[in-house]
Amino acid sequence: MRDEPFAADALVKNAFLGGRVQLWQPRDGYRAGIDPVLLAASVPARTGERVLELGCGAGPALCCLGVRVPGLSLTGLEIQPGYAALARRNLAGNGLEGEVIDGDIAAPPEALKSRDFHHVIANPPYFEEARRSAAPDEGRELALAGPVALSVWVGLAARRLRYRGSVTVIQRVERLPELLGAMQECLGALEVWPLAPRAGRAPRLILARGRKGGRAAFRLHPPLVLHAGAAHIEDGEDYTDVVRAALREGQPLNFPT
Amino acid sequence: MRDEPFAADALVKNAFLGGRVQLWQPRDGYRAGIDPVLLAASVPARTGERVLELGCGAGPALCCLGVRVPGLSLTGLEIQPGYAALARRNLAGNGLEGEVIDGDIAAPPEALKSRDFHHVIANPPYFEEARRSAAPDEGRELALAGPVALSVWVGLAARRLRYRGSVTVIQRVERLPELLGAMQECLGALEVWPLAPRAGRAPRLILARGRKGGRAAFRLHPPLVLHAGAAHIEDGEDYTDVVRAALREGQPLNFPT
Repeated sequence: MRDEPFAADALVKNAFLGGRVQLWQPRDGYRAGIDPVLLAASVPARTGERVLELGCGAGPALCCLGVRVPGLSLTGLEIQPGYAALARRNLAGNGLEGEVIDGDIAAPPEALKSRDFHHVIANPPYFEEARRSAAPDEGRELALAGPVALSVWVGLAARRLRYRGSVTVIQRVERLPELLGAMQECLGALEVWPLAPRAGRAPRLILARGRKGGRAAFRLHPPLVLHAGAAHIEDGEDYTDVVRAALREGQPLNFPT
Repeated sequence: MRDEPFAADALVKNAFLGGRVQLWQPRDGYRAGIDPVLLAASVPARTGERVLELGCGAGPALCCLGVRVPGLSLTGLEIQPGYAALARRNLAGNGLEGEVIDGDIAAPPEALKSRDFHHVIANPPYFEEARRSAAPDEGRELALAGPVALSVWVGLAARRLRYRGSVTVIQRVERLPELLGAMQECLGALEVWPLAPRAGRAPRLILARGRKGGRAAFRLHPPLVLHAGAAHIEDGEDYTDVVRAALREGQPLNFPT
């Protein structure tokens, strides 16, 4: 648990969306990769809507989403005060208005209970409690191995959602059974979009979406291929066009229709 | 429910595995497509092992599996006596020894309770009760829209399985959340292999496997593409090579490693 604010020399500044977003992150703690950026790119939010991120960390997804879609109402929930403070700083630093609430997904604060949102997003910790290995930084450890079941994340998301609102989650493929099992309990119109490192390779990540009150049948989309070519050959990025546009140009990553 | 045997003139004979399997099926009832053939091709059974099929119908999967892998002990469970009788006739007609037990998956007969199997396979009804539309033949209706939850199928499969034994299920992609939710309750080492009609298209079917006592993480494989080319252009079959080999030559369809 990261209770204390990060010291200035414990932070580094990283660029996202081709420099459109600048994010302070802990040098030795949990640092965002492409996952929250892809999550933010995939959210079907429109100007004027309210978006909640569960477990927003230092705010990479909220900042990327807010910069891509102007005029959103952005709210984050974060259990670790040090990360919540960073998320507030990062929102402001990117010219975004937003609110970051300190609190636990497993025991959400009263401040959240009367609110509803058009979209809820989450990038829950990636490793199950039983499989985690010790991490040097407690914040990083919690971010990678939080003990909260996905059913708790998904249940809270569904309760805070407006009718027909969407939940979008990015997660390692290993937890798809747990995630889908949880989502089918409280959401409909489920969709899974696998993210494959290269064409023909097994996906390692999935984007999963559901809608409150949705009735459409479950859909499994063809994998989104992240990297072009059969293997990493030369220095530099080899993202496929649609992925590069999402990561570097702030373009949306629309689920297949 | 098909209680009575089918009259001779209500049956047609169809060829599978390039003629290696000949199957009597009801002219107007449920008739096997490629699904039970792909299911049978995917089962990792070896000579001498015992295989149980839940809801074996007229026996297409058991016959295809038995012809591909000699020396298996084959058992089917089938609720509709008319189909169970056909399955017995089809096993014998293809030179296979096997047993077909009359019984309900939701209330399995005593004869099954003391037995265990190396592999269990199933091609459960494809449509959820709530979404079914009336079918002209009662047997076909039950085969397409049986009211038994997938958790009941999977639970029985797991109970009848030896330690480390496998369950393999073929199912429409729409029911993947329900299927994975059920499998994660009683099986491990889950794998899903999507079957896409053509490259880049959304999969419509999935093969799902789990092992009793398996501890490996869930895996989602790249889709298996059924048909070559971007669209159906000319008359005749356009199956991809690996699929044609499974359907027409009796070759195995091995899950990706």
